[in-house]
Amino acid sequence: MNAGDGPLSYVQNSSYQRGAIDVAKPIIEQEIATKLDIKQIYSNNPNGICTIADFGCSTGHNSFPVMQFITQAINRKLEYSSPKIPEFHVYFSDVVTNDFNTLFSSLPPDRLYRATAVPGDFHGRLLPEYSLHFGYSAWSLQWLTEIPKAVTDRDSPAWNKGEILYRGDKKEVCEAYLEQYSRDIESFLKSRAVEMVGGGLMAFLVPGVPEFWNPEIEYTIPSYLNLLGSCLMDMAKQLLLVHVSRSCFIEMLFQGRLSKAKVDSFNLPFYYPAPQQLKAILERSHSFTIERMEILNNPGKYTLPSANARAAFFRACLERLLTNYFGSEIIDELFDLYRKKLSASPVFLNPDNDKSIEILIVLKRKTD
Amino acid sequence: MNAGDGPLSYVQNSSYQRGAIDVAKPIIEQEIATKLDIKQIYSNNPNGICTIADFGCSTGHNSFPVMQFITQAINRKLEYSSPKIPEFHVYFSDVVTNDFNTLFSSLPPDRLYRATAVPGDFHGRLLPEYSLHFGYSAWSLQWLTEIPKAVTDRDSPAWNKGEILYRGDKKEVCEAYLEQYSRDIESFLKSRAVEMVGGGLMAFLVPGVPEFWNPEIEYTIPSYLNLLGSCLMDMAKQLLLVHVSRSCFIEMLFQGRLSKAKVDSFNLPFYYPAPQQLKAILERSHSFTIERMEILNNPGKYTLPSANARAAFFRACLERLLTNYFGSEIIDELFDLYRKKLSASPVFLNPDNDKSIEILIVLKRKTD
Repeated sequence: MNAGDGPLSYVQNSSYQRGAIDVAKPIIEQEIATKLDIKQIYSNNPNGICTIADFGCSTGHNSFPVMQFITQAINRKLEYSSPKIPEFHVYFSDVVTNDFNTLFSSLPPDRLYRATAVPGDFHGRLLPEYSLHFGYSAWSLQWLTEIPKAVTDRDSPAWNKGEILYRGDKKEVCEAYLEQYSRDIESFLKSRAVEMVGGGLMAFLVPGVPEFWNPEIEYTIPSYLNLLGSCLMDMAKQLLLVHVSRSCFIEMLFQGRLSKAKVDSFNLPFYYPAPQQLKAILERSHSFTIERMEILNNPGKYTLPSANARAAFFRACLERLLTNYFGSEIIDELFDLYRKKLSASPVFLNPDNDKSIEILIVLKRKTD
Repeated sequence: MNAGDGPLSYVQNSSYQRGAIDVAKPIIEQEIATKLDIKQIYSNNPNGICTIADFGCSTGHNSFPVMQFITQAINRKLEYSSPKIPEFHVYFSDVVTNDFNTLFSSLPPDRLYRATAVPGDFHGRLLPEYSLHFGYSAWSLQWLTEIPKAVTDRDSPAWNKGEILYRGDKKEVCEAYLEQYSRDIESFLKSRAVEMVGGGLMAFLVPGVPEFWNPEIEYTIPSYLNLLGSCLMDMAKQLLLVHVSRSCFIEMLFQGRLSKAKVDSFNLPFYYPAPQQLKAILERSHSFTIERMEILNNPGKYTLPSANARAAFFRACLERLLTNYFGSEIIDELFDLYRKKLSASPVFLNPDNDKSIEILIVLKRKTD
């Protein structure tokens, strides 16, 4: 995610994600009120310690309101049932390169909790054993730990030539991505199972796609990314023409950076599941039960009415990833082309055609 | 502290502090081996959780080697006495504006612990109740939470006119600073008393001054800061001359930034105790016992042989503070003048005249 809070930052370009939070709020509050096991909060400490974590907090902008309503909801529950209001500690976790300085400098002054940052990959262990009462993760579980190997293997039927993400019409690529996604969600759950107390809850907001949708007249998040891939391919083809008509020097300059082969070898580490796919993975867990699963109607899609705003949104999410692979020189041109393609598409112009979904899951840690 | 790891950063200019760490290491290891109560590590969790915190970690450069030898020392102790090696969690704590991004990006890959950042003022509560097994703080407790009010009050006998820190010849100023220091150390201990488990240890490295030293032919850290104050005063006087001989415009430009009155109203929030002063404060605590107190022979003073290196050291520590008060425009000129004054002083040129001391304290949390 882009750091800081400037015009290209994630802070300024994440209204899409924020839309789903308002819809999820009453559901999460209800689950806390009815299902969170509060005994554990007082089990090791008579005064009570309640630990909440956000896995994939980014710079905190979308996380703070959620941490606020989660602490308030737990507080309300405890007011009725317990003599002492516990201390709340919120662990903000994200990858080690995340901009935690911006997060800390924008912590809301009226928060009910003490804040802590935990850097690292949430597919592995991050927090002390049996310490976590409520886990949360929004718009983060789509990140894969690695690109499935078959997808970059020229000899594999799953080789993803000319694309930067799976497409529905390439079955082997889709399967390879889904397998990687399953492994990653399983690793995530395995680590959280150790960290969570029995009876603790975890809420996820997972971006996904419906079981069925028509790519001719509708689109989803993967469609957006496929379109970005087509821009990269267009730029690579264009550079090839430059090379043929000009000098060897230009070839050497650009070949490594944005050749067709380089685009072929690049794939985005994201997967957007259909609800049944996600449910099947979660049901395999021995440590958690699915308490609730809802497909949310995300009003966030209406917060990005223009092609400009959408290009800025994807740039905030993807710039670092693309820069690391292709260099920073191509970024402005790439997103300019992307914006033009979005503007020119009758499908993408209408947000009603956005069939992306937000899946809200609430899991409960079984008591061993 | 200056962020990042560039030539003016704290990372590149903190060898002075690092010197004392090597001397403190065997003492802290010995205290862990003989006095740390390890029962608490397994009291809430059969697999063991051991929590260590560094209060005032800055960008981590000087903290990482210490966290490494502390975890190793605890590990060695547990190997002999416990069947299971616990999980180690290290909380790196510093003010909310600290550069935690640099800290996270430089975490040593071979560390034995999981890392967490805790932003906030260590004079208040930061960590969960009864959660901390080992606390550490080096070169941080000299920071005061505020300038004693009397020191900036023109009507008080403790008004610190023309200086930016107490001097030995101004008794009332010294007393006001010591009172503030006492209150701050007491707040620190009160918060730690809640956070620490009974039998847990805490080690401090506190920069101080000897009970007796001769300011005519010797110097200490406060002398360095008094000399910096004289540079600020010189610059303010110089600007006044400019003002008298030139236009009103120049007066308006500089008056707010570096007038004599502005230097009069500025005071550094630091105190460097003599060992007996610190001991008296610590002995008033009802929660901790003093297990060890040593005056360390700090070889760090020999790591800054040139006036250049010393000016860079103080700039790395003080630039942010000075910039916030006087603006960034004066900084280059100020430290250039400072370097010249250091070079011209026969006292400061010889590091053997540096009588600053490092006080190592080991405290143990009483069992309630």
